[in-house]
Amino acid sequence: MQTDVLAALARILEERKSADPAQSYVARLYAGGSDLIRKKIGEEATEVVIAAGHADDGAMIREVADLWFHTLVALAARGLDHEAVLAELARRFGVSGLEEKASRQGQ
Amino acid sequence: MQTDVLAALARILEERKSADPAQSYVARLYAGGSDLIRKKIGEEATEVVIAAGHADDGAMIREVADLWFHTLVALAARGLDHEAVLAELARRFGVSGLEEKASRQGQ
Amino acid sequence: MQTDVLAALARILEERKSADPAQSYVARLYAGGSDLIRKKIGEEATEVVIAAGHADDGAMIREVADLWFHTLVALAARGLDHEAVLAELARRFGVSGLEEKASRQGQ
Amino acid sequence: MQTDVLAALARILEERKSADPAQSYVARLYAGGSDLIRKKIGEEATEVVIAAGHADDGAMIREVADLWFHTLVALAARGLDHEAVLAELARRFGVSGLEEKASRQGQ
Repeated sequence: MQTDVLAALARILEERKSADPAQSYVARLYAGGSDLIRKKIGEEATEVVIAAGHADDGAMIREVADLWFHTLVALAARGLDHEAVLAELARRFGVSGLEEKASRQGQ
Repeated sequence: MQTDVLAALARILEERKSADPAQSYVARLYAGGSDLIRKKIGEEATEVVIAAGHADDGAMIREVADLWFHTLVALAARGLDHEAVLAELARRFGVSGLEEKASRQGQ
Repeated sequence: MQTDVLAALARILEERKSADPAQSYVARLYAGGSDLIRKKIGEEATEVVIAAGHADDGAMIREVADLWFHTLVALAARGLDHEAVLAELARRFGVSGLEEKASRQGQ
Repeated sequence: MQTDVLAALARILEERKSADPAQSYVARLYAGGSDLIRKKIGEEATEVVIAAGHADDGAMIREVADLWFHTLVALAARGLDHEAVLAELARRFGVSGLEEKASRQGQ
């Protein structure tokens, strides 16, 4: 399922590049420029930090979703997407072989 | 591929719950408690904000990977994983039907 | 002058505890509870991080002022003020004698 | 007292511009460039956000002191100091007359 979600979201973020900022929150983020998107990432990260200190799992999940979403917008704004992030995680953890290469990354 | 990466990473994070903190960075994060993990999320988010202001795409990708990784550790520490985050994103964007339900979410 | 500014601001923040949230931004922060104030601190810190990467000195000063202001609100909400922060800074830097005690703090 | 503390700290931060990074934490921050100082501001802000959710007043004060300190280093690195921040706060709150000009700032 994840493949579909992140790939579908990437397509939506690409489509929003030609959307009307008056109609689309994502288009407003693009129009606001990188500082607006960066500001949102900082806000959402703070909300994750706060939610991580509370017991409400639903709030925690919503805040992480908000944070991931805004990082995906920041990536899309510069022509990147989730594939590069997942490839980086795969490389670090050697998950093609499902083994963490602790010696290389110390993770 | 994404499915494999996030699912494999979830398995690794689960296995690390019984790992020796002296041997595993993830086990040290768990042992450090939620405040240590929250602190790391704030640090990594700041690095994403900084990287998003620079032209180096590789650095941007690495910082987003760091941030996602630490949010996954925070989720794993409370028995949650990427599935819930992806389900939340799917719900917001209606991506089972690959259509963003803008009327509901205003995204 | 600084003494007057921070002391006067502390008095204002104290007075706002009995103000109407509909009339006062500070009263709204108090009414919103610690999570609202914490969220604002995260937002303002992000704006400092962004401003620190740009050449506009005026923007940098305004963002630092915003950040200090919201930390002062967070302190006031729990009955603390700038005096404790300045005493802590004085202790670390030994500034009663205007000498940094590097051996003690490694600063 | 505040005047002395912030003014004395400003003098120390100025002196550290010619200090050996091997001997002085502040000199290391200057040598590390603005991204290092920005990263520290993000870290310390996260620690304030975390401390603001806990009952330990001493920890809260220490984290706010850390945050203010690193913002002062960021200001010093570009030739600014606390005076500009306090002047900005005074302007907003009209504290020469000890009255908040709510109509102008909506604070």
